[in-house]
Amino acid sequence: MANKKYVVAVVGATGAVGQQMLKLLEARQFPIEELRPLSSARSAGKTIQFQGKEVTIQEATPDAFTGVDIALFSAGGSVSKRLAKEAVERGAVVIDNTNAFRMSEGVPLVVPEVNKEAIATHQGIISNPNCSTIQMVLALKPLYHRYGIERVIVSTYQAVSGAGWRAQDELKRQTEAVLQGKEVPKEVLPVGSLDRHYQMAFNVIPQVDVADQDGYTLEEMKMVRETKKIFNDDQLGITATCVRVPVMRGHSESIYVELKEEYRLDEVKTLLAQQEGIVVQDAIEEQLYPMPLQAADHSEVFIGRIRPDLHHPRGLNLWVVSDNLLKGAATNSIQIAEALIESE
Amino acid sequence: MANKKYVVAVVGATGAVGQQMLKLLEARQFPIEELRPLSSARSAGKTIQFQGKEVTIQEATPDAFTGVDIALFSAGGSVSKRLAKEAVERGAVVIDNTNAFRMSEGVPLVVPEVNKEAIATHQGIISNPNCSTIQMVLALKPLYHRYGIERVIVSTYQAVSGAGWRAQDELKRQTEAVLQGKEVPKEVLPVGSLDRHYQMAFNVIPQVDVADQDGYTLEEMKMVRETKKIFNDDQLGITATCVRVPVMRGHSESIYVELKEEYRLDEVKTLLAQQEGIVVQDAIEEQLYPMPLQAADHSEVFIGRIRPDLHHPRGLNLWVVSDNLLKGAATNSIQIAEALIESE
Repeated sequence: MANKKYVVAVVGATGAVGQQMLKLLEARQFPIEELRPLSSARSAGKTIQFQGKEVTIQEATPDAFTGVDIALFSAGGSVSKRLAKEAVERGAVVIDNTNAFRMSEGVPLVVPEVNKEAIATHQGIISNPNCSTIQMVLALKPLYHRYGIERVIVSTYQAVSGAGWRAQDELKRQTEAVLQGKEVPKEVLPVGSLDRHYQMAFNVIPQVDVADQDGYTLEEMKMVRETKKIFNDDQLGITATCVRVPVMRGHSESIYVELKEEYRLDEVKTLLAQQEGIVVQDAIEEQLYPMPLQAADHSEVFIGRIRPDLHHPRGLNLWVVSDNLLKGAATNSIQIAEALIESE
Repeated sequence: MANKKYVVAVVGATGAVGQQMLKLLEARQFPIEELRPLSSARSAGKTIQFQGKEVTIQEATPDAFTGVDIALFSAGGSVSKRLAKEAVERGAVVIDNTNAFRMSEGVPLVVPEVNKEAIATHQGIISNPNCSTIQMVLALKPLYHRYGIERVIVSTYQAVSGAGWRAQDELKRQTEAVLQGKEVPKEVLPVGSLDRHYQMAFNVIPQVDVADQDGYTLEEMKMVRETKKIFNDDQLGITATCVRVPVMRGHSESIYVELKEEYRLDEVKTLLAQQEGIVVQDAIEEQLYPMPLQAADHSEVFIGRIRPDLHHPRGLNLWVVSDNLLKGAATNSIQIAEALIESE
C-alpha cells in the first residue's frame, strides 16, 4: 500500500520521548494523513508545530482514538494501562513505549533489526522494549546468531533523561547549586515515586527504578526478562547492574558476553560493523570509542572497546552507547510503525 | 619501639593525594619527629600548616632524603623512578603511591587488611596499589579466603580526582561552561599526556590511562596484574573495564565474582560486614547503597547491592565504593607506614 497515509496519535506528545517522536515522524517522512498529539488535561489546548502547521494538543481520552490507525504511547505505564485497549477497540494498532504490556502474552516485544518478524503476531498492541534493553540486544544480535550466547553480564551508565524532563531539569538545577555553593534541590532522582531522593550532580546512583526481586531493581529485571523474550530464549543467562550517572542523554553499557562457541576477534568486529543500526568506533590506541555526548541525537547504537576476555576463551567485552530517547525509545517505536505499514 | 618518633618525607606534598597524606598524618597522630614536605622546584619555598606550625616545602632532591626514616611518594611515576632509590640509599623506607615499582620483584604491593605480612619482605621500597585495585581487593579478601575466587569481572565508575587537581579543576570549569553555553575547555581529560581531550562534564569516557595490551588500557591491566600479585595467585581470572565519570571524588565498581564454592548469601553479607575496613550498606528496598558523594572524605570501603548472580550458582554481584584519594591512595599509604613501624 505504497500511497496509503495514516492517522497517527502520539500519546505523551509533550514528554521527553514524545517530542522526539514528533521530530522523527517529520524527519523520516512517515506517511501521515493526520497527526493527533494527545496528552494529559493539563497540556491539552496547547499547540505544537508539525510539518510547518500548528496542531492543537487534545486530551488523551478513549474517544480521542476514534479514527486513529497507529497510536504511539509514551506517557507512562498507568496511561497505557488505562487507554491502550480503548485505542485498540477503536481500531488502532498501539505501539507502546512503557512497561505496561511488555511481558504480556500476545504482545510482541520488538527491536526491528532483531525480531521484526514478531510484529506479525500482534493482537493490537506491540511493545517497545526498555531503553537499556534495546541497545544491548542490538549489540548481541549478530553474535547470538553466529555463535550462540551462553550468558551476559552488563553494568549500565544511564542518563537522567530516561526519567523524563523533570529529572533532566533537576540535574541541571543541582549542578548549578553545587557550583554556586547553594542548597541542592532533591525531589526527583533516583525514582520520583520513592521516599528518598539523592543528589545526582557529581554523583553515581546504583538504582534505576524501584526494587524488584532478590535484591535486583525493576530496571535490572527488565533487561533480564525482555532480552529473553526478544530472543525467545529462556536459557539465555543475564545479570544486570543498572546505575544512573550525571549525563543528560545517552546510555552506556559495559557488556561481558560469553558465547557458545570460540570466536575470532576480527570476525566479531566484522559482524558488528555489518549489522544494520550499529556503528563500530573501536581503536583505543587512537582514543576512538563511543561516548554518550557524541551518541546523543543519533539513532544508531555505537560499539567500541571490543576485546577478548582475559580469562574465558569464549568471553568477549563490549562498550555500547546509544541515545536512550532515540534508539532506546522514539526511533525504535517509529521503526516498528514503519515495519508495520510495510507489512500491510 | 612504642615511643620512637620518625622523620617522614611527603613527596608531592602539594598534590591531591599529598594533601590528604598530610591531613591523615595529623589526624591519626602518626609519631612524627620531623615532617619534611617535598615537591618540585616550582612549589619549593611555599609553606604548609602541620600540627599548628608552619613548615617550608623543600625541593625534592637526592640530598633532601638525608636523615629521613619514611618517605611517602605520590608525585608521579617519573619522580619515583628518579628519587626512590636515592631515598633508600640514604636509609629511608619508601612507600610509593605510583605505578613505578608495583610489579617489580622484591617490592611488596600492600593493602594492609589483605596482605600486611608482605611488608616484612621489603628491600627498601613498598608499593601502594592503584586506587581502583585497592577497594576491589579489600572487598574480595574475605570471599577469597572463605570460598576461593575463580574469576572477577569489574566495570568501574571513576572520579576525576584520580587524574589530579588539574582534572578536578577542568571538570568544574567544563561544567560551568556547559551551563553558561560557553565553549568548553578540553586540555586534561581523559589522559593529560595524550593528544585527544574530551568533554568530561555530563559525559562518560571509557578510557582511564593510556592503551596497554590486547585492547585494554593500562588502568585495566593494573587491576588485573596488581590483584594477582596481592593475592599471590596467578590463576585468579580478572577482566576490567575502566571508565571515567563526572564525579570529583569516590570510585564506584560493579563487581561480578565467581567463587570456587557455592555460598550462602547471608554468610557472604556477614563476612563482608565483619571485615576490618569495610562498611556494608545493603538494602535496596530502603534505598540504602553506597554512593561516591557519601563515601568521599571517609577512609572505609563501602559495599552494597550484594546479590546472587541470576545465572551462575557460584556468581555474586557487588557494588563497591571508596574515596580514591583516601583508601585508594593516602589512607592506604599511611596504613602501610603504621604497619611498618608496628613491626619494628
